[in-house]
Amino acid sequence: MVRHHKEGFTWEGVDVYPYKEEGTHFKSITRQTLSMGTSQFPVELRYFEIQPDGHSTLERHEHVHTVIVIRGKGQVLVRDRIYPIEVNDVVNIPSMIWHQFRANQGDYLGFLCIVSSERDRPSRPIERDLEYLRSSQEVADFIRI
Amino acid sequence: MVRHHKEGFTWEGVDVYPYKEEGTHFKSITRQTLSMGTSQFPVELRYFEIQPDGHSTLERHEHVHTVIVIRGKGQVLVRDRIYPIEVNDVVNIPSMIWHQFRANQGDYLGFLCIVSSERDRPSRPIERDLEYLRSSQEVADFIRI
Repeated sequence: MVRHHKEGFTWEGVDVYPYKEEGTHFKSITRQTLSMGTSQFPVELRYFEIQPDGHSTLERHEHVHTVIVIRGKGQVLVRDRIYPIEVNDVVNIPSMIWHQFRANQGDYLGFLCIVSSERDRPSRPIERDLEYLRSSQEVADFIRI
Repeated sequence: MVRHHKEGFTWEGVDVYPYKEEGTHFKSITRQTLSMGTSQFPVELRYFEIQPDGHSTLERHEHVHTVIVIRGKGQVLVRDRIYPIEVNDVVNIPSMIWHQFRANQGDYLGFLCIVSSERDRPSRPIERDLEYLRSSQEVADFIRI
């Protein structure tokens, strides 16, 4: 019923995994599943932690994310805007909107992510998408692919 | 897309409400809705904050809760056990299980609660339920009704 936290943003009985199985489109990021959801309420609570200078994948998908930062600070791209984020800030990622988290403020960026257990796989940008994204100089400078 | 926090566990554009409209079965507790959910993902993210010596309602319901503490410490009753909880501890409240949160450790107890937008109303204990709950001395001493 209660899953106590341990030192350093880890939890009893929760394994720390790589963010994704493979790829070079992310950097220095781990994933922990804090709550798996049930058949009645198929919603997962995950904790992602990006080390200083790391980033998540630049991607989009049909499913939505609700995120709340619980460690450190960084920035997030949502659609065509870059937002500073820090502890207790809430981020809603709408359906099919490009997004990327970066721990680019000299600190860890750790956040909870609430997501449906039943969800589509993310898509990464193809050349046409990158052209669109890079039409903003600020976004061009921000994204890591 | 981004809802920044303000001072003291409040957020931009988020009103602080009483926990419930009426009643004397709770004490010193507020409610904020940080994310409303969408038709595609009808899941709400709420923040509840209990002042020192306050408590939530002793109740149960069909819908499940996933909770994570983000401020202070306290205790929670889940079924027939009392657990100490503090920042970053995760609590899963199963369906139809009695539960109550108390800020009984000389500190605030603030927690995020993830819940379906479509949910049943909570039930409070009737005399028969209280007899059951009070069959444990520890629970009898803990509960506030």
